[in-house]
Amino acid sequence: MTSSSIPAVTKTFDVVGIGNAIVDVLVQADEAFLESHGLTKGTMALIDEAQAERLYASVGVGLETSGGSAANTLAGLAQLGGRAGFIGRVRDDQLGAIFAHDIRAVGARFDTPAASLGPSTARCLILVTADAQRTMCTYLGASVGLDPEDLDLDLVRQAKVLYLEGYLWDSEDAKRAFITAAEVMRQSGGEVALSLSDAFCVDRHRDSFLELVDGHVDILFANEMEITSLYRSESFEAAADQVRGRCRVAALTRSALGSVILSGDQTIHVPPFQLGPLVDTTGAGDLYAAGFLYGYTQGESLERCGQIGSLCAGQVVTQLGPRSQVSLPELLASHLS
Amino acid sequence: MTSSSIPAVTKTFDVVGIGNAIVDVLVQADEAFLESHGLTKGTMALIDEAQAERLYASVGVGLETSGGSAANTLAGLAQLGGRAGFIGRVRDDQLGAIFAHDIRAVGARFDTPAASLGPSTARCLILVTADAQRTMCTYLGASVGLDPEDLDLDLVRQAKVLYLEGYLWDSEDAKRAFITAAEVMRQSGGEVALSLSDAFCVDRHRDSFLELVDGHVDILFANEMEITSLYRSESFEAAADQVRGRCRVAALTRSALGSVILSGDQTIHVPPFQLGPLVDTTGAGDLYAAGFLYGYTQGESLERCGQIGSLCAGQVVTQLGPRSQVSLPELLASHLS
Repeated sequence: MTSSSIPAVTKTFDVVGIGNAIVDVLVQADEAFLESHGLTKGTMALIDEAQAERLYASVGVGLETSGGSAANTLAGLAQLGGRAGFIGRVRDDQLGAIFAHDIRAVGARFDTPAASLGPSTARCLILVTADAQRTMCTYLGASVGLDPEDLDLDLVRQAKVLYLEGYLWDSEDAKRAFITAAEVMRQSGGEVALSLSDAFCVDRHRDSFLELVDGHVDILFANEMEITSLYRSESFEAAADQVRGRCRVAALTRSALGSVILSGDQTIHVPPFQLGPLVDTTGAGDLYAAGFLYGYTQGESLERCGQIGSLCAGQVVTQLGPRSQVSLPELLASHLS
Repeated sequence: MTSSSIPAVTKTFDVVGIGNAIVDVLVQADEAFLESHGLTKGTMALIDEAQAERLYASVGVGLETSGGSAANTLAGLAQLGGRAGFIGRVRDDQLGAIFAHDIRAVGARFDTPAASLGPSTARCLILVTADAQRTMCTYLGASVGLDPEDLDLDLVRQAKVLYLEGYLWDSEDAKRAFITAAEVMRQSGGEVALSLSDAFCVDRHRDSFLELVDGHVDILFANEMEITSLYRSESFEAAADQVRGRCRVAALTRSALGSVILSGDQTIHVPPFQLGPLVDTTGAGDLYAAGFLYGYTQGESLERCGQIGSLCAGQVVTQLGPRSQVSLPELLASHLS
């Protein structure tokens, strides 16, 4: 059992995350709808505002909820009792107010000023199919304008871990903001965690991600599709062999197969938790990272970190939407005491 | 078995409804929270914008979904395959766009122009407690400005039934709009249906409602609390005796006891449907009315109308939010074939 190392410096926050500040619109759809709109199930496609409005007009009744990959992770960490901060850009509109409310309501710090001009708050249309898979179409809106000036570097310095979503690479401004934050993090003695976000996102930015993983990332989160896409591997095992040793910890999720944590020459297999019927996989990876990082910043063993992640992911897939509707500390107490 | 009477005139719409156009914000809360904010469980309180913002700031993560009592009923009717129209006022903001999308997405006609000035789209904070009861705090916003000029009287004339929510009585403008519409409806040979909406709403407008029921309403929907409040009765049975004969049909819902339909000297008891664990009672009465009016405008017997209403209500309480996330025609086919 390897114990995670927490920076010796005293820090006010466990994890600070940077990501796209997004409101999700969850709708039910069938396979034919995905096909007729050229969408690939389980992935995320970027769309512009006109496309977003056309697509929205063609779908059924929606359920709106705050989302965003890193934001979901930081909200989950805060719900677990961790000290969480989030940096991301909304506009000063109704959806922006909903986003800000929801992340603050769980106790996360969120101070990025809302833009008073420009595109509206980002929206992600999430098409949930009967098999509980989600297919996402994202209009990045105001979130794409996150630049280094929006960064609260003091907040970053106060964190043990800086957490970033790969989706930031889809915006030049956000990418620059990330690199600035990562440098500051290094100087202040913290660690950098990255989620690869999506197999197509990996495909769009493979060279950047390969370089990052080798040189700048301490903790990598990826699912099976993402890690095999990163190394263009034939199998999960081949991809795992590739990533081993390139960063301090790689936490690789495999849906119903649970997760595999690689650190040094160790390989830790963590079984999944099945807590009820599968309803909607939105947020599964985000909540795995939340649980993992909560354990990690509390000094738990990597196996325990993986178990907490698995449990949180297992919960969020039994409900609609990516923010847990149940008490995560109670969940931990009843399943991992 | 009494058969309902459909107007002989050919009509393009089965039901046209007038109501407050509202977006719901569903949050979980406990009894202590309700008590500390002076809220009475199971009822609706009107709040102003400042109160709405203060209350929102004190609650947890929300799930946003289109709501509004009559709007939920018309959406349900459209989902069942009925020809539905809705009249209500939103602003030209993001929540207004969500409301308009959701009611059109199920096939209901919604053409009321969005206000370009004035208060924002109405919001209802719905506090869902562990017993699945909902306690509502409504900021009426733009919906309160509905006036006779917003009324599409041609749309009203084309309907077999005009459906109204009692909540309209909380706004002088909306009340005038309703009275205009009801008169037009009478002249065009249709029927008028009214939902009493809420026991406190009944208490605020008892004299108006008593007069309406006696003189202008063909079909009355009320739950046990509302009908006993209307007649200040000691018991459900006493209230039922009071209302009998005052309107053509009274459909009285009693939660787990099912519903009772009174028409002439007939009393029809309809059992409830229990389709799964109780999650959130939001929309139960609205969907009962949807199912009932669908059957009614299809010429079904009153017993059958009640059964369809019961089934739709039984479904909506097994999910979060007041708009059905499953196919209502499939539900009917599998339970009432």
